[in-house]
Amino acid sequence: MSSVLRYDEEALEDFQEFLRSGSFTKVFFLVDENTHEHCLIPLLREIEEIGDTEVLEVEAGEESKSPEVLFQLWMALSELGADRHSLLVNVGGGMICDLGGFLAGTYMRGIAVVHFPTSLLSQVDASIGGKTGINLQHLKNKVGLFLEAERVYLLHRFLETLPYPEVRSGYAEMLKHGLIADRAYWEQLISINITGELPSSQMIRSSIGIKSGVVQQDFRESGLRKILNFGHTLGHALETVALENQSPLLHGEAIALGMVGELLLSSKFGGLEESEAYSAINEIQNRFRDIRPIGDVDRQFEVVRQDKKNRGDSLLFTLLSGLGQAQVDIEVPEQAVREVLQYLKSW
Amino acid sequence: MSSVLRYDEEALEDFQEFLRSGSFTKVFFLVDENTHEHCLIPLLREIEEIGDTEVLEVEAGEESKSPEVLFQLWMALSELGADRHSLLVNVGGGMICDLGGFLAGTYMRGIAVVHFPTSLLSQVDASIGGKTGINLQHLKNKVGLFLEAERVYLLHRFLETLPYPEVRSGYAEMLKHGLIADRAYWEQLISINITGELPSSQMIRSSIGIKSGVVQQDFRESGLRKILNFGHTLGHALETVALENQSPLLHGEAIALGMVGELLLSSKFGGLEESEAYSAINEIQNRFRDIRPIGDVDRQFEVVRQDKKNRGDSLLFTLLSGLGQAQVDIEVPEQAVREVLQYLKSW
Repeated sequence: MSSVLRYDEEALEDFQEFLRSGSFTKVFFLVDENTHEHCLIPLLREIEEIGDTEVLEVEAGEESKSPEVLFQLWMALSELGADRHSLLVNVGGGMICDLGGFLAGTYMRGIAVVHFPTSLLSQVDASIGGKTGINLQHLKNKVGLFLEAERVYLLHRFLETLPYPEVRSGYAEMLKHGLIADRAYWEQLISINITGELPSSQMIRSSIGIKSGVVQQDFRESGLRKILNFGHTLGHALETVALENQSPLLHGEAIALGMVGELLLSSKFGGLEESEAYSAINEIQNRFRDIRPIGDVDRQFEVVRQDKKNRGDSLLFTLLSGLGQAQVDIEVPEQAVREVLQYLKSW
Repeated sequence: MSSVLRYDEEALEDFQEFLRSGSFTKVFFLVDENTHEHCLIPLLREIEEIGDTEVLEVEAGEESKSPEVLFQLWMALSELGADRHSLLVNVGGGMICDLGGFLAGTYMRGIAVVHFPTSLLSQVDASIGGKTGINLQHLKNKVGLFLEAERVYLLHRFLETLPYPEVRSGYAEMLKHGLIADRAYWEQLISINITGELPSSQMIRSSIGIKSGVVQQDFRESGLRKILNFGHTLGHALETVALENQSPLLHGEAIALGMVGELLLSSKFGGLEESEAYSAINEIQNRFRDIRPIGDVDRQFEVVRQDKKNRGDSLLFTLLSGLGQAQVDIEVPEQAVREVLQYLKSW
């Protein structure tokens, strides 16, 4: 079930071996205009004997995770003669991995898929654990599948040219990994200066280790996996409403705000000590103080209500009981959620 | 993995128990205008305590298995507040089971789904084995998922009001089950007068037994399951091209023609004795002589070429080696396929 992961030099060797042994009838690359130029072209220069290939390019940005683009890609695969023994290779960030995973999982009831995640966020998050999907209008990942890629190839060099906001966005998910599962790792993460340095390969492996450990125990998110949703109930709502207002936040920016809000909720409803909550909030605020929620609280609340984790009328959150410890399915009263959204708006 | 099957009186009891124990937040019924009136309404009269329900109605006919309708249904579920703990109940023929299975499998990365197949064809085929999907333009089931319903409820009474062409269409798939797996069952089937009588409950169970036995051994169609494709490589092509020409064939009608063609190929390339091939062809022709392929042979051949079972340039068929015995992945030369399509056109 879980993907084979390969890093850096080993990745390219393994990919070539995978292509040889898979004897795919055709290899399709899914990219956006940025990853086409900066990642795919250099990658193809290093690969010998790739056989019959096609490149599918979509526009960069979350708007491509739509039913319309999915439909165009289904048609493109069909028209370009993709069969059940074709391979889809996603080269891009979270949008490409999510969209391409869903595309491969549904075309002809599923063809083989591998990821080359190119952003920090997709390396530590989107490419691991098999969540694929698209958005319905502005509702994030409302449609999708659980489907692990056969291989995930992690090349640290792709990170070197990322703009700072992209690095910081991935860093937010890494902070989450520390907060939910490993206090020592959290402390290691807040000791680096993210404005000037990339998280090390070792840190990326720590994050992937936390995420894939959780996913292996609960692939379909019936329980434990929900700990990965810390910061995401509020974060997704902020991200959705910002996008509706044509002022998109990066995913990690929204999650950073979401974690601040959910740290507050954790101190009230999750058993996290108040002093610990405020020290963690402080660390996050220091790094994300330029980020503000966009749009109105009523609409944000409405999106929280539609969150996939809820059951009927109850609002369920993943909250911390300590730094490095999370608990799932904690019911939070509507009023408390509204207050926190109000607080974030005015912080 | 495999669905729980319940027949007739036991079905309704089990369904009510399933609803009670599942404590679903909301129950959605997917129907077309015919099954809404003739099946769902009588069904709901017999069920107590169903809780919060919504009915999603699509137009009857294969055209509803489209990306556009799928997209509308995703939106409808979202707008009507479906969450991960909602249930989708498909009440209809193959179109509803295929479309609804894919809808449920992808909404929020999968919600629970049960089928009440209402046609003979869907009782013996579409509802069993977890193939779900939609068509891309006229390419049948080009997009989909392998996903078994949690429950399949088989009510023989739904068959009593079916028009004759619908009964005969399902009967064609039953004939296929006999041909690929059980010669005695084939002989039993050809002993009934399908113009005047319904296949018995026992025969329906035999067909389901053959199909689910195969599926359990090979859910994802890596090998054995392909025996179920007998008659379908040509049959799908005939069905697709007829639809493109606005003269749709019923699925079983197309499969009957496809089986005639593939019986001929079986005698040339599959090891089936010529006399047996012609006796089976004769039985099928006696029952389907009013059905003719529509459209031109070049286009039909083009669709055969795009069949999901092919690998690269080879045309692969499931053929019979005897009555009641099938073999998969037999390569057939292009010229022989064209000749058979030509023969069917002029039979």
